[in-house]
Amino acid sequence: MSTGVWLIGARGSVAVTALTGALALRNGLAGPTGCVTELPELAGAGLPALSDLVFGGYDVASVSLAKKAGALADAGVLPAALVRALEEELVAAEQEVHPLPVAGDQAGTAAMMAADLAGFRERHGLANVVVVNVATTEPAAAPHPAHADLAALEAGLAGGGQVLPPSSLAAYAAFQAGCPFVDFTPSTGARLPALDRLAARQAVPYAGHDGKTGETLVKSVLAPMFAMRHLRVRTWSGTNLLGGGDGANLAEPGPNAAKTASKQKVLRETLGYVPQGDTRIDYLEDAGDFKTAWDLVTFEGFLGRRMRMDFTWHGCDSALAAPLVLDLARLAAAAHRAGRSGALHELAFFFKDPLGPAPHGLADQWRLLCDFAAGLPEDGVGDGDGDGDTR
Amino acid sequence: MSTGVWLIGARGSVAVTALTGALALRNGLAGPTGCVTELPELAGAGLPALSDLVFGGYDVASVSLAKKAGALADAGVLPAALVRALEEELVAAEQEVHPLPVAGDQAGTAAMMAADLAGFRERHGLANVVVVNVATTEPAAAPHPAHADLAALEAGLAGGGQVLPPSSLAAYAAFQAGCPFVDFTPSTGARLPALDRLAARQAVPYAGHDGKTGETLVKSVLAPMFAMRHLRVRTWSGTNLLGGGDGANLAEPGPNAAKTASKQKVLRETLGYVPQGDTRIDYLEDAGDFKTAWDLVTFEGFLGRRMRMDFTWHGCDSALAAPLVLDLARLAAAAHRAGRSGALHELAFFFKDPLGPAPHGLADQWRLLCDFAAGLPEDGVGDGDGDGDTR
Amino acid sequence: MSTGVWLIGARGSVAVTALTGALALRNGLAGPTGCVTELPELAGAGLPALSDLVFGGYDVASVSLAKKAGALADAGVLPAALVRALEEELVAAEQEVHPLPVAGDQAGTAAMMAADLAGFRERHGLANVVVVNVATTEPAAAPHPAHADLAALEAGLAGGGQVLPPSSLAAYAAFQAGCPFVDFTPSTGARLPALDRLAARQAVPYAGHDGKTGETLVKSVLAPMFAMRHLRVRTWSGTNLLGGGDGANLAEPGPNAAKTASKQKVLRETLGYVPQGDTRIDYLEDAGDFKTAWDLVTFEGFLGRRMRMDFTWHGCDSALAAPLVLDLARLAAAAHRAGRSGALHELAFFFKDPLGPAPHGLADQWRLLCDFAAGLPEDGVGDGDGDGDTR
Amino acid sequence: MSTGVWLIGARGSVAVTALTGALALRNGLAGPTGCVTELPELAGAGLPALSDLVFGGYDVASVSLAKKAGALADAGVLPAALVRALEEELVAAEQEVHPLPVAGDQAGTAAMMAADLAGFRERHGLANVVVVNVATTEPAAAPHPAHADLAALEAGLAGGGQVLPPSSLAAYAAFQAGCPFVDFTPSTGARLPALDRLAARQAVPYAGHDGKTGETLVKSVLAPMFAMRHLRVRTWSGTNLLGGGDGANLAEPGPNAAKTASKQKVLRETLGYVPQGDTRIDYLEDAGDFKTAWDLVTFEGFLGRRMRMDFTWHGCDSALAAPLVLDLARLAAAAHRAGRSGALHELAFFFKDPLGPAPHGLADQWRLLCDFAAGLPEDGVGDGDGDGDTR
Ligand SMILES: NC(=O)c1ccc[n+]([C@@H]2O[C@H](COP(=O)([O-])OP(=O)(O)OC[C@H]3O[C@@H](n4cnc5c(N)ncnc54)[C@H](O)[C@@H]3O)[C@@H](O)[C@H]2O)c1
Ligand SMILES: NC(=O)c1ccc[n+]([C@@H]2O[C@H](COP(=O)([O-])OP(=O)(O)OC[C@H]3O[C@@H](n4cnc5c(N)ncnc54)[C@H](O)[C@@H]3O)[C@@H](O)[C@H]2O)c1
Ligand SMILES: NC(=O)c1ccc[n+]([C@@H]2O[C@H](COP(=O)([O-])OP(=O)(O)OC[C@H]3O[C@@H](n4cnc5c(N)ncnc54)[C@H](O)[C@@H]3O)[C@@H](O)[C@H]2O)c1
Ligand SMILES: NC(=O)c1ccc[n+]([C@@H]2O[C@H](COP(=O)([O-])OP(=O)(O)OC[C@H]3O[C@@H](n4cnc5c(N)ncnc54)[C@H](O)[C@@H]3O)[C@@H](O)[C@H]2O)c1
Ligand code: NA
Ligand code: NA
Repeated sequence: MSTGVWLIGARGSVAVTALTGALALRNGLAGPTGCVTELPELAGAGLPALSDLVFGGYDVASVSLAKKAGALADAGVLPAALVRALEEELVAAEQEVHPLPVAGDQAGTAAMMAADLAGFRERHGLANVVVVNVATTEPAAAPHPAHADLAALEAGLAGGGQVLPPSSLAAYAAFQAGCPFVDFTPSTGARLPALDRLAARQAVPYAGHDGKTGETLVKSVLAPMFAMRHLRVRTWSGTNLLGGGDGANLAEPGPNAAKTASKQKVLRETLGYVPQGDTRIDYLEDAGDFKTAWDLVTFEGFLGRRMRMDFTWHGCDSALAAPLVLDLARLAAAAHRAGRSGALHELAFFFKDPLGPAPHGLADQWRLLCDFAAGLPEDGVGDGDGDGDTR
Repeated sequence: MSTGVWLIGARGSVAVTALTGALALRNGLAGPTGCVTELPELAGAGLPALSDLVFGGYDVASVSLAKKAGALADAGVLPAALVRALEEELVAAEQEVHPLPVAGDQAGTAAMMAADLAGFRERHGLANVVVVNVATTEPAAAPHPAHADLAALEAGLAGGGQVLPPSSLAAYAAFQAGCPFVDFTPSTGARLPALDRLAARQAVPYAGHDGKTGETLVKSVLAPMFAMRHLRVRTWSGTNLLGGGDGANLAEPGPNAAKTASKQKVLRETLGYVPQGDTRIDYLEDAGDFKTAWDLVTFEGFLGRRMRMDFTWHGCDSALAAPLVLDLARLAAAAHRAGRSGALHELAFFFKDPLGPAPHGLADQWRLLCDFAAGLPEDGVGDGDGDGDTR
Repeated sequence: MSTGVWLIGARGSVAVTALTGALALRNGLAGPTGCVTELPELAGAGLPALSDLVFGGYDVASVSLAKKAGALADAGVLPAALVRALEEELVAAEQEVHPLPVAGDQAGTAAMMAADLAGFRERHGLANVVVVNVATTEPAAAPHPAHADLAALEAGLAGGGQVLPPSSLAAYAAFQAGCPFVDFTPSTGARLPALDRLAARQAVPYAGHDGKTGETLVKSVLAPMFAMRHLRVRTWSGTNLLGGGDGANLAEPGPNAAKTASKQKVLRETLGYVPQGDTRIDYLEDAGDFKTAWDLVTFEGFLGRRMRMDFTWHGCDSALAAPLVLDLARLAAAAHRAGRSGALHELAFFFKDPLGPAPHGLADQWRLLCDFAAGLPEDGVGDGDGDGDTR
Repeated sequence: MSTGVWLIGARGSVAVTALTGALALRNGLAGPTGCVTELPELAGAGLPALSDLVFGGYDVASVSLAKKAGALADAGVLPAALVRALEEELVAAEQEVHPLPVAGDQAGTAAMMAADLAGFRERHGLANVVVVNVATTEPAAAPHPAHADLAALEAGLAGGGQVLPPSSLAAYAAFQAGCPFVDFTPSTGARLPALDRLAARQAVPYAGHDGKTGETLVKSVLAPMFAMRHLRVRTWSGTNLLGGGDGANLAEPGPNAAKTASKQKVLRETLGYVPQGDTRIDYLEDAGDFKTAWDLVTFEGFLGRRMRMDFTWHGCDSALAAPLVLDLARLAAAAHRAGRSGALHELAFFFKDPLGPAPHGLADQWRLLCDFAAGLPEDGVGDGDGDGDTR
């Protein structure tokens, strides 16, 4: 049975790379490199097949999927031959990519979204639909009392209030429609007590947030290395130079602050203290969809001896992010079918700023992920007690 | 009760740094940074206290320990003030550092060594004595039939044969004397079937080999990162520039080859394939006890997209190695007291080229180490069935 | 005959390193590495000998020179043994380091400074005194009409006005006292039309500004390389991590902006266009007197092919700056004696943001410097026509 | 009037990139980025226009030019669209690319080559023909007495001897045919006393050798920077990872040694001493036509303070080399027409290992080049006294 993937930001770089890649894999035009759920450790789990994914979504932009894919080919993200080969399928995919609905108030907009999700599910006979936020990062949301309490939230919305940032409104609509939600961005999304309550009530799981694709990924193995060796990290300074739509947006102070905070957490969590130094994100238009990060780490060893390491990471962000979007959609769908609801902290492996009491070291996250996958029922149906334990 | 640490190569950089550090810690002049066994995860285990270690050893050089420590201070490895403060204790430590004994044949030399170890144990009333090889790396040993079979080895030695490389002769003597043996170098040491048999017969454990202190340490977390993310590493090229006694020796083709091979293993073991590229070690006299390594990694992600990272590591080799020597002595002593014998593959965490069927990823090695430590009896005495399981 | 060097900021890192170094050279305790004026190409010029320099100056801090030198030794800037050997001479040097004078208004303060300079000259029978600003970088000064016109400036000061930033007041006082002035910082200093006029009237030369010691030095050779090869630099992004007093101050937005602007000029001037990318300065307390800079350059070659290079620079800023302070004092003194007045654009070699119509490529600056030195009279006396041409 | 460019190794990466680029420029499909002779400083000189160059040459391989260009596009060296647009012209260029002639002995082969060059000149009515060696680097040639003396060389050849390496035989033939010769490779080429004599007798100039395109280019600006600042370079270690045909060949010990030696010369010549450290070239098949170099430089400043810098260079070798081939052909042709003969040390700017008493610092080389170009007669005809001085 098929699974729906509803992308908020469906015409963006990550979304179109994910879509093109899924089409390529389905057509045997590419291998699964970069897809974590295709590794032997996870491939056995009860996940929907990549070829059973059906895509739809929203965007506020109107560039066609095929044109965006062409631009991604010019930028070196996608192989040009692949985009040419998949042109027809990309055109067909337009069918289910819609403008973001806007009603008179947030309650109305959410209702339109929920209806869209239900329609998508029905049109394609989908087992379930996972909503994935890959839209532009929002500025950090202003706090609001309704965020902390579901009743207050529902009252606020019912009263015509403008209480949620767009990413959270999408999560709200997803939960109302009985859909799992994945926060791939650092935006607020489902990360509000009121929405956590709603997810529980609606018995849907959610995951997030902020896909871990570059510098933070490396940090999440290097910082534990220093910790395991009892080496004291004194300073950790990072510079990220990136272009693309995401880079342009992150050059704005609001989103920049949100992202930067999310990027340093891994140090505090894995080292147990916060070394000196900042992480910077600088926009460099010419970098296109590529990011170059440089990190300098100074540390202290035996008898106070100072040492240092630095690394540069030159990655194609969309190529790193896209397969994780597919992974997360599969995993969230399977968790849903297995009866899980609420925050999926077991998916911390994929995120810069994982939900809940999750480990921040990559190896521990990996173990948690493998255990989680191993616990998924083969037939995709849980034992019904809602904790994902099928025995 | 005290534990002996018998250092082969006791006047070398690693040995003198380890000794000075142990004296500093005992005197409250330095903290335990760099000592893995002082981390909370291991500190609870039934290990001899750092202050209960008693040092002795062999060297073929005659530089005094105090003078060597002074040279290490000038080179920036040890704090000058610390060396001044510990001068008396370093002079006192001369008592137990002896020239390498040489008899007419290897059997005789081994007997002298075993007697030295027994004498050391008795003089200081030691619970046991761990022999640690931190001598100059040997060229790869020529194969010899006696290496594979204990009876053949004993016959060979009895017949006055020159059948073992020096590091293996030291291991042989250690085992004969009932002492655990730690191979901190890439030399052959205990890694011969005949010696493995002997360790079993004598009921002593051994560990090795080649302390993991720099580039390989980083590899052992980065390579698993690529593997866990299903990113295909295409090339991994490394350059190590190092000076010091070790560097000078590794500039010789024999030891260089031994070390280089030991450094690439981690890739094959953690990735499951061998990417293109070599690891080089170049001698740079001026680098002194510091090493600068540069590694370039190119990898392939989703839909064939090529990406890259590089890192430089600027470490003080002796400062990185010395606390591990203390860790290993403590762990091997505890394993011995717990009744373990044979290869301690649980100590893979410490080595570039770990013994036995051990994991090569650092996080897995860490878990193995923690489990091992957790299984050690608090009182340092095993349940006597020889497998280290105390229940 | 002796030459005075009057340091504004005499208790700072650069000043104390320069002073200690001059004492060390004079006593034969160190060689001239880092001193440009000791290179064969310049050593022949009519410069005062290093041993003929006499030091004095101002500071607002009260730490003793010996204590500051000790701190610089602990920080790895100065050799500890050297500081011990020169302790007495450092104590003696206190004689001529004074608190910054403060009168009721700027005119009064300037008069006190001029008197101090005259007193210093007389006490030591100095041929001339060069004032060098190595004080903390000021925030960019607010514009003021009196800056553009000498008469307006003198009227403003006479009227008790607070019209000049401290660095410019020091230049004003120096010029009044007939002393050459060197701007080693990015502060405003002599760089005001009114002060340029004053220097001409008083027939004293001045040089500046902002000593070129690290990232900009490297830029000043790499950028011309790209230009000479007709390679198009697309982006040039720099990150500077530095500690020390200078770093702490540069973390303030005002001075940071001043410094950053001064650091990018070299690209525009040598490439003829401004590539994308910024230069950042981040304070990293733990870095102490060392600076680590990382620069990423992307460029385009034949047929549009994109390529890249990056570099890291790990320098001890005070050790790089201090010998240049000595160089500049010697050169400014010689220029003065040779009858030069006004901006010494021939000293562009030493500065990030050189005065006047000077080249920004290091090789061109070097040639200009060598020609300038070659034109200095051997006996240190010009032909009197004021242009430095002695024929 | 047109100028011929005869490429030895005409089907190689450098040659085909140069040819494709010249066609692209002529057709207005690309700009002159990377072409030094198109900079304002040189564009005024009496050089043949890029559009007046006519190409021919030899190769031992038989891959078609269009297919090679296609492969270079796949490898990211050439823009794919450009190759498609120029396909017809590439096919047409096959006309003048011939297999390397082989006669019974070297004298016969040389005669065939000279005849080919004459034929090429006549067929296209060329003013002159410049022979450029861009063939695979040879192993260092075995010394032979005939190399030192023209008479001995001619006798040796006349006697049917095999006395010259292939690159020198090509130079010999070029000179016999009255053609200038450019050594773009580190092979021996014209660099034999006997051939220098021959060039003089034939009144033809030659230039070389080994195009400077990457790490050495950077060295030729950084090493002078250290020298000008009186900073003592203690170590300079380089690693070059490269693929492509050139990389595969340089992995052979013979050519590797030739190239490595040629790469270190710049340090001795610009610093005046040889720092510790080696330059390595390692073959990395997967790198294709790209090269990544890493250089670590440690240096000493004021009062012995140690500092360091490193850089990585990620360049497309063929894209860097190809425009220089065009530059050199134009410059050698103009020099020839201006009556110059013998070694053109003024072209040192282009070479890793320049001929004669040339400077090794890039800025000095640049000045020499500009002066040289300025001295070329506008009409391309010298004053006939053979020294290139046209006044
Ligand atoms: N690429 C990575 O490695 C990576 C990693 C972690 C997180 N992310 C996050 O993923 C998101 C997408 O990144 P990208 O590179 O694809 O950016 P992008 O700019 O290419 O795409 C974002 C898309 O979202 C659309 N959009 C904006 N506001 C919207 C709204 N309110 N509703 C629906 N669509 C909206 C835009 O029109 C655009 O098409 C960003 O938030 C980024 O921070 C990316
Ligand atoms: N420092 C590190 O990070 C590190 C890491 C892994 C392995 N190692 C290994 O540790 C060993 C020691 O390194 P180091 O830096 O102290 O080297 P070193 O050269 O400073 O010391 C080696 C000592 O061994 C002595 N020696 C030589 N042959 C001997 C013999 N047959 N018997 C007894 N002593 C002998 C030498 O005289 C010297 O004092 C080397 O084999 C090195 O490869 C070091
Ligand atoms: N070190 C380098 O490489 C380098 C390069 C270029 C420029 N500079 C400039 O040189 C200056 C000195 O650098 P540093 O590292 O020695 O800094 P520092 O902080 O160690 O020293 C500055 C000194 O100036 C004193 N000071 C502050 N205000 C003063 C005033 N109004 N009058 C007199 N003294 C005053 C301070 O008390 C301090 O002792 C800075 O402006 C820096 O930007 C340094
Ligand atoms: N690319 C650069 O940056 C650079 C810089 C300096 C020097 N070089 C030198 O330029 C040369 C060409 O480099 P490339 O990358 O084009 O190499 P390549 O391997 O792509 O091309 C060399 C060509 O020479 C041909 N060849 C071999 N032996 C020959 C012979 N005896 N006569 C005629 N042709 C012969 C080969 O068949 C091949 O087509 C090499 O020697 C290289 O060392 C290149
Ligand atoms: Na680096
Ligand atoms: Na780097």
